[in-house]
Amino acid sequence: MIPRSHEFDIRAYLKQKRAQVDKALDECLPPEDTYPQSLYRAMRYSVFSGGKRFRPVLCIASFEICGGRGEIILPVACAIEMIHTYSLIHDDLPCMDDDDLRRGKPTSHKVFGEAIAVLAGDALLGLAIETIARRLPPVAGFEITNKVLVDLLAAIGTDGMVAGQVVDIESEGKAADAKTVEYIHTRKTGCLIASSVRIGAIVADASEEVVERLSRYGQRIGLAFQIVDDILDVEGSFGKLKGGVGRDAQRQKTTYPGVFGLEKSKETARSLVNEAKEFLEDLGSKALPLKLLADMVIERTS
Amino acid sequence: MIPRSHEFDIRAYLKQKRAQVDKALDECLPPEDTYPQSLYRAMRYSVFSGGKRFRPVLCIASFEICGGRGEIILPVACAIEMIHTYSLIHDDLPCMDDDDLRRGKPTSHKVFGEAIAVLAGDALLGLAIETIARRLPPVAGFEITNKVLVDLLAAIGTDGMVAGQVVDIESEGKAADAKTVEYIHTRKTGCLIASSVRIGAIVADASEEVVERLSRYGQRIGLAFQIVDDILDVEGSFGKLKGGVGRDAQRQKTTYPGVFGLEKSKETARSLVNEAKEFLEDLGSKALPLKLLADMVIERTS
Repeated sequence: MIPRSHEFDIRAYLKQKRAQVDKALDECLPPEDTYPQSLYRAMRYSVFSGGKRFRPVLCIASFEICGGRGEIILPVACAIEMIHTYSLIHDDLPCMDDDDLRRGKPTSHKVFGEAIAVLAGDALLGLAIETIARRLPPVAGFEITNKVLVDLLAAIGTDGMVAGQVVDIESEGKAADAKTVEYIHTRKTGCLIASSVRIGAIVADASEEVVERLSRYGQRIGLAFQIVDDILDVEGSFGKLKGGVGRDAQRQKTTYPGVFGLEKSKETARSLVNEAKEFLEDLGSKALPLKLLADMVIERTS
Repeated sequence: MIPRSHEFDIRAYLKQKRAQVDKALDECLPPEDTYPQSLYRAMRYSVFSGGKRFRPVLCIASFEICGGRGEIILPVACAIEMIHTYSLIHDDLPCMDDDDLRRGKPTSHKVFGEAIAVLAGDALLGLAIETIARRLPPVAGFEITNKVLVDLLAAIGTDGMVAGQVVDIESEGKAADAKTVEYIHTRKTGCLIASSVRIGAIVADASEEVVERLSRYGQRIGLAFQIVDDILDVEGSFGKLKGGVGRDAQRQKTTYPGVFGLEKSKETARSLVNEAKEFLEDLGSKALPLKLLADMVIERTS
């Protein structure tokens, strides 16, 4: 699936990769009639609620441009999506962002109750890591599996995603500054996106230099992704994102447009995407999918 | 620390191991002044709130009787305690057991608010796994590290601890049967205790047969431990356990005494402990600490 020309069809690429990820996720998650059913129903409900699989596709693209081939990356791609889903379920809880809708559908706690929502999140985090620990070693070896786990766990931990969410919650309703909004965005969204790109390369056994280059690409598009989320919350149309337009303002969230204004936010998102693409220059034409995925970050409307 | 005689002092042994675990936990957890402080304060508050370190001590004892030496087991022991703590923080949430007190102290969400409590639990789960993934390979190798992670993650996952908690929550207020209470207890408490014993042996590179024998020991004392918890909730004195005596009855929890009566529950706990000790017979006198730890499960008063 490496592009041979500039006529490479990113939409078809995305569609194919998403289908691959969806199929693999279906295989990773025990069926809904497994006891206790409410747990598996809740896990599946949120995993299959219309996510764009942006992070797993980034991971697969990174794996492929580093020379990786075949389906060995899929357990890792699935783990990333399960972790992303766990974070959304917990973020939506009444004690956190208190959102009733996610992607136009009732959030997990609205459907299954708060207790099951908390536990479905916990279970998805554990299952994500277990999926990598069980399924990656036979194809990538124990050492690479360990590198992947360490990278991913750091990205979602107390200096990563969880820290971003803590500061996000604690900054609500307070006058936000540039440093705080950057802290929140790089950690809450950026870290997992950057790790997705990095671990794709790690599974393909890429050199440290290439992993570092891709990491920088990932950090830039991760931050751009969250800035665009904030912009869409101000400008988008109802139901496209979480609870609808203006939700951040209602919640007095710390957002990029809130601190820097809309125009400056758009400019920053664009320049981050350009910077991201510059890190791909030395990787040649095979990096095209990652370039086009970077463009999609600012072109997206939902 | 292998006993040489029947005069082995289990209290002194416990005290020494607990001090070792406490010191190692203090080193695992970033200091309270690390940003964002509320997260680290919440993590430390619950980890250092008077836990008896029963699971890590079991793990260390199992490691040592299988010939393991030195401090290489400590990251694993700490991870077990962090996971146990994460499960307590989430269990105590208003949407779960809604407990205001744990070991006589206000629960995490009473002190830090629900959002931080959820996130401190999430963070402890992630940090536990990260601690093993980072710190075990240099001393035990990648393959043993992987075995440990797979065992532990299965024990706390959707067919382990999380499943037990789901069924526990969903059984509240319903007429409970023997099958349900056994399902809850073996998974909610038993799986992590059994895994603690098993992974101690795995780190010491014990044979599969020994791991299996210790696993059976761990399953028996794990179930006995939860039955005794239930009994203490009926008979104990205020403040010894969670919110105080009778909390299970207030919450209409599915308990062993509730289904089988107090006398039968005590008899079952005793016979489980005896069964557990039988699995240690072939391991000789070096298994003494695990025998005495099993006895403590039914002798404890808090």
